[in-house]
Amino acid sequence: MLRVLDQTLLPHHERWLDLGEIGTICEAVASLRVRGAPLLGIVGAGAMAIAAETLGPSDGALAAAAERVGATRPTAVELATGAQKAVASVRDVPLPGRPEALWAFARGYLAMRIAQDRLLGMHGSALVPEGSAVLTHCNTGALATGGIGTALGIVRTAWEQGRLSHCYATETRPLLQGARLTAWELKRAGIPASLLPDTAAASLIASGRVGAVITGADRIAMNGDTANKIGTYGLAAVAARHGVPVYIAAPRSTFDPACPDGTRIPIEFRDALEVGGFGDQRWSPEGLGAFNPAFDVTPGELITAFVTEAGIVRPPYAVALRAHLGTA
Amino acid sequence: MLRVLDQTLLPHHERWLDLGEIGTICEAVASLRVRGAPLLGIVGAGAMAIAAETLGPSDGALAAAAERVGATRPTAVELATGAQKAVASVRDVPLPGRPEALWAFARGYLAMRIAQDRLLGMHGSALVPEGSAVLTHCNTGALATGGIGTALGIVRTAWEQGRLSHCYATETRPLLQGARLTAWELKRAGIPASLLPDTAAASLIASGRVGAVITGADRIAMNGDTANKIGTYGLAAVAARHGVPVYIAAPRSTFDPACPDGTRIPIEFRDALEVGGFGDQRWSPEGLGAFNPAFDVTPGELITAFVTEAGIVRPPYAVALRAHLGTA
Repeated sequence: MLRVLDQTLLPHHERWLDLGEIGTICEAVASLRVRGAPLLGIVGAGAMAIAAETLGPSDGALAAAAERVGATRPTAVELATGAQKAVASVRDVPLPGRPEALWAFARGYLAMRIAQDRLLGMHGSALVPEGSAVLTHCNTGALATGGIGTALGIVRTAWEQGRLSHCYATETRPLLQGARLTAWELKRAGIPASLLPDTAAASLIASGRVGAVITGADRIAMNGDTANKIGTYGLAAVAARHGVPVYIAAPRSTFDPACPDGTRIPIEFRDALEVGGFGDQRWSPEGLGAFNPAFDVTPGELITAFVTEAGIVRPPYAVALRAHLGTA
Repeated sequence: MLRVLDQTLLPHHERWLDLGEIGTICEAVASLRVRGAPLLGIVGAGAMAIAAETLGPSDGALAAAAERVGATRPTAVELATGAQKAVASVRDVPLPGRPEALWAFARGYLAMRIAQDRLLGMHGSALVPEGSAVLTHCNTGALATGGIGTALGIVRTAWEQGRLSHCYATETRPLLQGARLTAWELKRAGIPASLLPDTAAASLIASGRVGAVITGADRIAMNGDTANKIGTYGLAAVAARHGVPVYIAAPRSTFDPACPDGTRIPIEFRDALEVGGFGDQRWSPEGLGAFNPAFDVTPGELITAFVTEAGIVRPPYAVALRAHLGTA
């Protein structure tokens, strides 16, 4: 059984879900009850243990389940990777032992994530200019990774180290992960924070109030092009105009060695109903179309550096990323 | 009596308000029941007729009322200008005739706006690349001006002339003027349209789907720096990266000859409660701060051209704007 917090109900309700079938896992992933690129990797791994229990532990059954789970959110590479790595880990395990081995793998994956987030947070904290404020987007905290988070893990670490003065968090329309989840995490952590409409981010950056823009990533190509929550590209473009550094925080598992550049990253388009309203509330008239991609691609040239659990990567990315990942 | 549609209730309810006192007018302006830079000019003028009726027609009473109304929304220059022009128009009118003269001025101001919007729409339509789509922000239609609108008047004119294929409208957080008002106007006009989260605008521009970004303005400095709805600057910065033209549509009354550049434009900051929720719905936890400016300033260097009722103005703005306004 996978036990996850239903993030669609936050910050008002804390309801835990027990997921015991591939169908309910896929529903929870598709509807973003569980979300966050690194956390999806853990879910992908755990889903394979459940697949082995409910659909059988054969190579064919596991491969089909990994395919089905990975396709639920095609942009987030870690979901598929977590599932595939889990399946690969039991290739030489006899069928009867596979469910237990897959659970052990998933638990180990979570423990590794917790340790990696701490390392990533320490590497990234050194990039936060002493005493400055950081702007972040979407949610990349504990809710997104299972550890302390990636970009928000840096924020938390920099706060603990006394380097950070303030955290600005975008609302992150349409699903408001910033307003609901990041705000909830920042408040619980006692970090001085302000929320802003996504429209206000350019003005905030232009005002000189932030020393860095730090976000997570859903998939990173080998030239540094980065798919992340819709809106990231706009933040990076404005930050570049003002000489504000843009840092992308992500575990090495978010980098896709098979993806040479951003044009090869599939972008998930989501339901039109997510636009023009939220939850049960509709504020737009019916009958209009919608443009609702879940992710955009920030060109590597706009990214000052990547932060992983293994350190900092600076341009030229075509060379530096291969070297960095090669140390894995 | 000023009769205005309560825009905070759109698109779900169409409720008209009869405003007969300066206090209720200021409340309606501050709470955005009536909004839109050019329409605020008409409201400013009408408010002076009501001031003459209720507070007296003396020079002192009218000046104080103009000051009070103008300060309600300090960034929108037309609100104060409409009030001041109305007061100036009755300087030589004997006191007993002033209320009637002020009503005549306000009616004339509205009639002029309707004619000017049509002219502006025709000038601007010629800038829409044949068969292309336009991205617009906030609401600049009939609800914002009393005529056919400025940026949305161009969209409407280009659609009538068969030049426009599609209109993309941002939601425009935090007050959702795009999702509520522009969407309502586009639907009523039968123009093919899509709504997008503000976060998706950069991705839309990068995708090559739009031939131009067209917005209105709340105050324009003499070097072309333009204060407009929060979020405009981000759109312009991304459009510039992709070579997509940015047009600002505004009557000549929006240009402030006393303002040399954008640093001199006062920016209105609004209540934190507008962020992290909408209407009665709260989606963020309580107790966080907010960064909530109503406007940002787009540098003139990012603006391809201005469109007024008198034609098109291209750079260098320091010279061209003075010449254009001199023809007024």
